[in-house]
Amino acid sequence: MNNILITGGAGFIGRNFIELLSSNYGKIYIIDNFSLGLREAFSSDKIKVIEFDLKNEFKMFDEIDCEEVHEIWHFAANSDIPSGIKNINVDFENTFITTLNTIKIANKYKVKKFNFASSSAVYGDWDIALKESLGPLKPISNYGSMKLASEAALCSFGFKEEVDINIFRFPNVVGVPATHGVILDFFKKIKLNGFLDVLGNGTQKKSYLHVKELISAMNFVNSKSNENINIINIGNNDDGITVKEIAELVVKKYDNEIKINYGENDYGWIGDVPKFKFNTDKLNNLGWRPELSSHDSVELAIDEIFNRLNL
Amino acid sequence: MNNILITGGAGFIGRNFIELLSSNYGKIYIIDNFSLGLREAFSSDKIKVIEFDLKNEFKMFDEIDCEEVHEIWHFAANSDIPSGIKNINVDFENTFITTLNTIKIANKYKVKKFNFASSSAVYGDWDIALKESLGPLKPISNYGSMKLASEAALCSFGFKEEVDINIFRFPNVVGVPATHGVILDFFKKIKLNGFLDVLGNGTQKKSYLHVKELISAMNFVNSKSNENINIINIGNNDDGITVKEIAELVVKKYDNEIKINYGENDYGWIGDVPKFKFNTDKLNNLGWRPELSSHDSVELAIDEIFNRLNL
Repeated sequence: MNNILITGGAGFIGRNFIELLSSNYGKIYIIDNFSLGLREAFSSDKIKVIEFDLKNEFKMFDEIDCEEVHEIWHFAANSDIPSGIKNINVDFENTFITTLNTIKIANKYKVKKFNFASSSAVYGDWDIALKESLGPLKPISNYGSMKLASEAALCSFGFKEEVDINIFRFPNVVGVPATHGVILDFFKKIKLNGFLDVLGNGTQKKSYLHVKELISAMNFVNSKSNENINIINIGNNDDGITVKEIAELVVKKYDNEIKINYGENDYGWIGDVPKFKFNTDKLNNLGWRPELSSHDSVELAIDEIFNRLNL
Repeated sequence: MNNILITGGAGFIGRNFIELLSSNYGKIYIIDNFSLGLREAFSSDKIKVIEFDLKNEFKMFDEIDCEEVHEIWHFAANSDIPSGIKNINVDFENTFITTLNTIKIANKYKVKKFNFASSSAVYGDWDIALKESLGPLKPISNYGSMKLASEAALCSFGFKEEVDINIFRFPNVVGVPATHGVILDFFKKIKLNGFLDVLGNGTQKKSYLHVKELISAMNFVNSKSNENINIINIGNNDDGITVKEIAELVVKKYDNEIKINYGENDYGWIGDVPKFKFNTDKLNNLGWRPELSSHDSVELAIDEIFNRLNL
């Protein structure tokens, strides 16, 4: 069985990946800086956790010392779009430099397969369904731009070194253990204030996927694709769900009535892509479809987050 | 008149830009590290030259101290594709980090217009004409990937700070004072060896534009565009010219017979896009067309380089 290295392996995507797929692999090396990653122990003793911040190249290969690595899953990144708005260094260091350093790791271990968590945010703001063949790419957040910069670095690396690269463009992903995102934000605001202030007027409408389905889709694509550089949207191709609907689903969890106040803008913050619909033909044609709609994914995640928060 | 700041202002593109367009502007600040830039003096005393390497952020604002800057033309980059093949740091530092630092300069001076020299290399290797709307972008060289990474950073910056950005995707640009490129390489090889060894089998076929036409096109687009982020191919939409034809035009400059030896691959080196044709509808529809074909641009440049080299 292949040994794998997972960057950001203790985070939201990484934890779910390991829970669902660790039996497919031999030794599993996890690199995490634990800025958002959870410190809970992992269940299996074939997992080795390396605490290291991949934005630092200095002493990287002293700290990261594996036997063999056959495959990389690179999830380490800034995962919080608003936090990178004021200062590009947040996404530059945590998303782009971590990618360059992970490429250096892949090079050292002569890895032949590299999987990367990219984002729908690379497209920018369009009023048509986002398809992989769409251009030009004009990301409107530093989050999106440093995901695109990472894609670019992976393309030239994968071509030259003959490493197969899967670039998964994620939609909004929901589930537990969420570390940020609209649902968690809403619960936190209600707990703090007793009411819910929504960023934007609630009309923002986006595509969501449950994290367990995301992992299933990536695993499927990874087993099927034979492209050198495979850029693929992972998600739902339905019309998405509005922020207003999400807010209403969240407040329904409370016995007492929670007042919802909407803002005036049709976007949540500068750099927020207010509406997007995914074209997932490539994924569907490969043979994978989600079981849950955007709406049902969100509803399930609301239950899971509510239960986990013990509200 | 607007003051402008030109990065890489002493280089191939920068020198031609200043020769043709300096009368349109007020004060002109040039930043160059003179790694390839020419040390010849500039003709006008409204030009201020700052010797600084933009890959360093340290002391950047001590060295770069301008009065007002209204517009930036960002040409500083690694301009030599093969030199960045072995080590991504060449393009990472000289193309991408220089862009991030130039964005920081733009921010400091509250610049409202930013022009960037990108490249057809962002597309990767396609067998159809390269159009701005084409995707997914899969650059095959670190040169192309760090140009794309720079585009990405400029998109999110331009959107958030409401700075109008022109992203010019260049074809192969020829003329003097060339610092590298196929024509100069051929003359140097003939001088050194007395014969001409060509990288690849000569079938590589690409679109070329003369540098004086490139400057004219950029100036035209800059005066016409009203897009926030304007990504546009600059070049010829003809079928291009083969390396074999270029080699034959070069050897014709000599009185004695020069033997041409071709390689076996249909590409020049790993990361070389062997064939490309540009779709320039966007540029043409805006109202600009080149006067010279790819063939005639190359032929003119061969004369100019031959004369300048005093062969």
